[in-house]
Amino acid sequence: LIVAAGAGRRFQASVAKQFVELGGEPLLVRTVRNFNASACIDQIVIVLPATEITEFREALAGYHFEKVVDLIAGGAERQDSVAAGLAWSEEHMPEMILVHDGVRPFAEESLIRRVLIAAREHGAAIPAVRPADTVKRGGEGFVLETLDREELYLVQTPQAFRAQILRAAYDHARQTGMRATDEAALVEAIGYRVALVEGSPRNMKITRKEDLRVAEMLLDSGTADES
Amino acid sequence: LIVAAGAGRRFQASVAKQFVELGGEPLLVRTVRNFNASACIDQIVIVLPATEITEFREALAGYHFEKVVDLIAGGAERQDSVAAGLAWSEEHMPEMILVHDGVRPFAEESLIRRVLIAAREHGAAIPAVRPADTVKRGGEGFVLETLDREELYLVQTPQAFRAQILRAAYDHARQTGMRATDEAALVEAIGYRVALVEGSPRNMKITRKEDLRVAEMLLDSGTADES
Repeated sequence: LIVAAGAGRRFQASVAKQFVELGGEPLLVRTVRNFNASACIDQIVIVLPATEITEFREALAGYHFEKVVDLIAGGAERQDSVAAGLAWSEEHMPEMILVHDGVRPFAEESLIRRVLIAAREHGAAIPAVRPADTVKRGGEGFVLETLDREELYLVQTPQAFRAQILRAAYDHARQTGMRATDEAALVEAIGYRVALVEGSPRNMKITRKEDLRVAEMLLDSGTADES
Repeated sequence: LIVAAGAGRRFQASVAKQFVELGGEPLLVRTVRNFNASACIDQIVIVLPATEITEFREALAGYHFEKVVDLIAGGAERQDSVAAGLAWSEEHMPEMILVHDGVRPFAEESLIRRVLIAAREHGAAIPAVRPADTVKRGGEGFVLETLDREELYLVQTPQAFRAQILRAAYDHARQTGMRATDEAALVEAIGYRVALVEGSPRNMKITRKEDLRVAEMLLDSGTADES
C-alpha cells in the first residue's frame, strides 16, 4: 500500500510533492519501482488524491509495473488514505500488508525484506533510525524536558503488519476517533507489540524542497539504490 | 566556544570528522569562518583534541580569523570539552557564551543572532527544528511509546547562555556527576528555563560520510550560506 494522497502543504510547489520530478521521473514512480522490483511484494495498491488518479494512471502506463493492481482515492489525512487501502484489501485478503510513504523513493530491497521478516515473526514491524541530535519536549517556546536519546527512534516506512492486526487497529481507531501520524501507533493502541527494525539513513522522506535536492544528490551518487 | 574535540567514531575515516575536507577546506575552518564573520561574536575559543592543536593552529594561520583568541585541549566527551572552555572563560569574563558543534559548518548569521537575542532575554536559548518523522521510545527491539510529535524538537547549536548560568549548570553537573548530550540539559537541571528558537534546516551536523556528501551538495547550491 503506497500512500501518496497528500497535498504537500510543506512543499510549496505547483505540483504535489509526490509528482515532483526526481532525476527526470515523478518521485512516486521511483517509489513504486522499488516495490515492483521487490521479491517480497506481490501486489501494489497506490492511494492518490481523487483528482490525480486518471493522470497518474496514464503516467504509469509506460512503465510496465505489473504488480500495481489498483489506484484508489485517498482521504483528507494519511490515516484516511490507509483506511481506504485497507477497505480495498478486504476483498483481496493479503496475509501481510506493508504501508509505505509515496515520498520515500529510496527504500532498498534489503530494508523491505528486513521489515517483512520481522512482521511475519512478530505481527508488526517498523524501520527506524537513531536521532543524531538531542531531542527535547517543548511547549510555549520553552524546553519542557530533555529525552533520553538512547531510547529514541525516528520512524520510517515501509511499516509491515499481519493484515488482521492492522485491520483490528483501524477498527479500533474508527470506533474511538483516535488519530495518529503512523500506522504502528494505532497497532500499539490495541496492545500489540511492534518490533523495531534497523532503518536506512538513505530512506529519506521528501517533504521540503531542500530534501529534493538532497535526493537528487543521492541519486547521482548511486548509493541510494543499494545499501 | 567551538567544540571539536571528538574522535568521530561514527565517521570511519583516517582523519577525525572535524578536519575532513569540505569544498577544499577542513570542515572546522568553514565552521569557524561563520562565527568569525558574525557581528554577534567577539571572541572564539576552539576546543580540540590535545594532539591536534599544533597542526590546526598552523592550518588556521592562513585564514586571518582575528576573533580566534585561543585553541585549547578538550576532554574525553563533549561535556568535558565544554567544561575546559568554561574554565578558560573564567579569566576572560564574557557576558554571554555560545557553544557550537565544530561539525555544523552551515550556521547562518541570522540563526546566530536569533539564538543570542533570545539568550540575552531569557538567559538560555537553543535552536531546534521539528522532526519530519514520527518519533517513538523503544527498548529491547520493540516500541514502548509513540511520542506526541507536536511537542518534539530536534536540537541544534549554537546554544547560547548567560555565562553565569552556564557556569552554575556545569558546577552542578560536576558535583552531581550528571552527564548530558547537550549544554541546555545541564541548565535545565538547575531549574532555568531554556528558550526554543527556530533552527535552520541547513544547519546540519556532519557525523557520517553520507552527511558529508549532503553538505557538499549544499555548498554547491550556495543556499547553505544564507537563509
